[in-house]
Amino acid sequence: MSTAAPEIQKTARDGAFGNAVALSCRECGNRVELGPSYACPECFGPLEVAYDFPAITHEEIAAGPANIWRYKALLPVPTDIEQSPNTEPGFTRLLRADNLARELGIADLWVKDDSTNPTNSFKDRVVACALSAARELGAKVFACPSTGNLANAVAAAGARAGIRTVVFIPSNLEQPKQVNSAVFTDSLVAVEGNYDDVNKLAQEIAAEEEGWAFVNVNVRPFYAEGSKTLGYEIAEQLGWRLPDQIVIPVASGSQLTKVHKAFGELIELGLVEDKPYRIFGAQAEGCGPVATAYKAGVDAIRPVKPDTIAKSLAIGNPADGIYVLDIARATGGAVEQVTDDEIREGIVLLARTEGVFTETAGGTTTAVLKKLVETGQLDTSLETVIINTGHGLKTLDAVSGRVGPRATIPASYDAFEAAGLA
Amino acid sequence: MSTAAPEIQKTARDGAFGNAVALSCRECGNRVELGPSYACPECFGPLEVAYDFPAITHEEIAAGPANIWRYKALLPVPTDIEQSPNTEPGFTRLLRADNLARELGIADLWVKDDSTNPTNSFKDRVVACALSAARELGAKVFACPSTGNLANAVAAAGARAGIRTVVFIPSNLEQPKQVNSAVFTDSLVAVEGNYDDVNKLAQEIAAEEEGWAFVNVNVRPFYAEGSKTLGYEIAEQLGWRLPDQIVIPVASGSQLTKVHKAFGELIELGLVEDKPYRIFGAQAEGCGPVATAYKAGVDAIRPVKPDTIAKSLAIGNPADGIYVLDIARATGGAVEQVTDDEIREGIVLLARTEGVFTETAGGTTTAVLKKLVETGQLDTSLETVIINTGHGLKTLDAVSGRVGPRATIPASYDAFEAAGLA
Repeated sequence: MSTAAPEIQKTARDGAFGNAVALSCRECGNRVELGPSYACPECFGPLEVAYDFPAITHEEIAAGPANIWRYKALLPVPTDIEQSPNTEPGFTRLLRADNLARELGIADLWVKDDSTNPTNSFKDRVVACALSAARELGAKVFACPSTGNLANAVAAAGARAGIRTVVFIPSNLEQPKQVNSAVFTDSLVAVEGNYDDVNKLAQEIAAEEEGWAFVNVNVRPFYAEGSKTLGYEIAEQLGWRLPDQIVIPVASGSQLTKVHKAFGELIELGLVEDKPYRIFGAQAEGCGPVATAYKAGVDAIRPVKPDTIAKSLAIGNPADGIYVLDIARATGGAVEQVTDDEIREGIVLLARTEGVFTETAGGTTTAVLKKLVETGQLDTSLETVIINTGHGLKTLDAVSGRVGPRATIPASYDAFEAAGLA
Repeated sequence: MSTAAPEIQKTARDGAFGNAVALSCRECGNRVELGPSYACPECFGPLEVAYDFPAITHEEIAAGPANIWRYKALLPVPTDIEQSPNTEPGFTRLLRADNLARELGIADLWVKDDSTNPTNSFKDRVVACALSAARELGAKVFACPSTGNLANAVAAAGARAGIRTVVFIPSNLEQPKQVNSAVFTDSLVAVEGNYDDVNKLAQEIAAEEEGWAFVNVNVRPFYAEGSKTLGYEIAEQLGWRLPDQIVIPVASGSQLTKVHKAFGELIELGLVEDKPYRIFGAQAEGCGPVATAYKAGVDAIRPVKPDTIAKSLAIGNPADGIYVLDIARATGGAVEQVTDDEIREGIVLLARTEGVFTETAGGTTTAVLKKLVETGQLDTSLETVIINTGHGLKTLDAVSGRVGPRATIPASYDAFEAAGLA
């Protein structure tokens, strides 16, 4: 299989990628030119974006827009990125979660709520960066395989950008996520199989078809950088300070590794004080290959066949799983997993305490937070952040049997009184 | 019927309402003390908040948070409002809508997208202001009658604030909106009847029960002020400038009147240049009492029994309808209405052109924009803004029969090619 898509331009105009200077192999350090490549030509390791950052100040960032482009100097995008039509994601709420903290016995807790992004998940961040790369590389089609949230984000971003989108989803996906993509594009394609099957098909198409930019395949290095903005925002919204502990859901594992990268960059640039922090990963038991490896104390991750209500985390063979293990262990964190029932409870717990309606992925993160406290793996005296990556309206079925009206009454005051509601 | 709820405190601490100084009757100008009153004791006209504004600068506003509290000096809230747990709504995207503009033949078009608020509608703005008033007045229960979006917002805000919520909805409401409220509160109450029936019940309860703050009944004057922030944000995001034309959906009519009030305040405070602007109202034909009166050239609004898919606009007897008529006529705007089919088309049109998935209310606004162009009521050479008030995930049924996967294929490249997708 080729490591670069045919016919997307191999190079782009000067400044197309901002302060990025190369793609660098995470395994062997080999550097290649910025372009539509995602695997190292030497060792087949994953490529990621390397930068040569100038000095950057808090003031420069604060003067930017209330979206991810305030961090454009830290992303592989041109300096005029705001001028190109995009969904303008990010700068979502960092909420103090005093009620949830009290409920779980944690001193100091925050929820980073990414469910209020344009298409209601963190995927709008990564897709915005992928779109920029696709545009700069002259792609004709903007595409993805997706468990749902990514499909929504790609279809919406493509519509706004006026580029043709083709979006591949597993045919058993929740209907709200299907409609939430199909409303934006006439080329939603349902594939018989699970996410790993859909992903494999996308890799084949990326290798064969002219000018297709698959956001999480051949422009993946650019795409993945978008997740760094979650780390930047958390630090900025805490008053340019890193949290002590952070709990992040793990699907491919990319988001967790990129938040870690973001924290490292902020330290390196002197934008926050250097300090230790612990990173925890959250998985569902029905798809917990990284948590299983973490608990077993091994380095190899054994792929699993996903069986969980947390479909947006249902990646059985996570590309960045081994890096998640490294980071959790190196920072003194952990990777934990919870059952589908705990996930459902997590959704209702977060909603009832903080007024945030999360999807199953956020239910997983909330439930893992609870389990980390109960098992003593999390230090409850330290400042902790959890990331809510998506919106509960997308996975309504998870809780629709659990919550509902307390009573149905006729429209009269007597009926109100009789129902014991006064 | 009493015009003030019993047992909510009649007065509050100094500074509880910021720069607000009184409640003033919209009809006779009579002033009463700031408190849980909503109808003039002299003439029963609607009360609204009156202020004594100090000088306010662009810089002071820009230094505030990226939510509605950046405008706290212009709202009936205390100066430390950010410290009280709330959903932190607002400062949503104002998107340039070049694709939609091209499609409709408009020179200069923007979409103010309020679907990315905490509970995905503009109601989070008004509820945040009502919550502040309820808190300052010592309310024990935070309640509302609602067509759905308001229920979501009240239930979420109450959960975060740790105040008991009781939320009344018509029993035939879309299930997503029901779950999206029930997930936050154990006191969602389904009422047999339409919104007007539910509203009447709420008024009875507000008059009888101790310490209940009904956001849109007895603290309505405070609540309604929240909609002004839409006007402030549009002006600020345009670079402190008013648009030439704006299209706003009409349910009770409150939002439209408050955007007008906001524009007037900004002019009065010297925060924008004084200039003419036209305000247009958007209704569904199945509930278009204001549009009907506008077209008939009469001042009286005849209540209707709603029958439309735009349930969040289905208020048959709109409280602020006569003021909407006044404003549309005085500014050179209009009030227009569209069919349910046009609403469905409006939803898909906005999604396919701008990547914004709106609910039926936004479909109404988009379809009315189209109709205003086609009928020559809107000047296509002028800068125009439309407001998207809520999220399409809440009214999926409206489009789920219209959009869907283009194909379902096996997970193979051959199948991809055979489906003609290459």
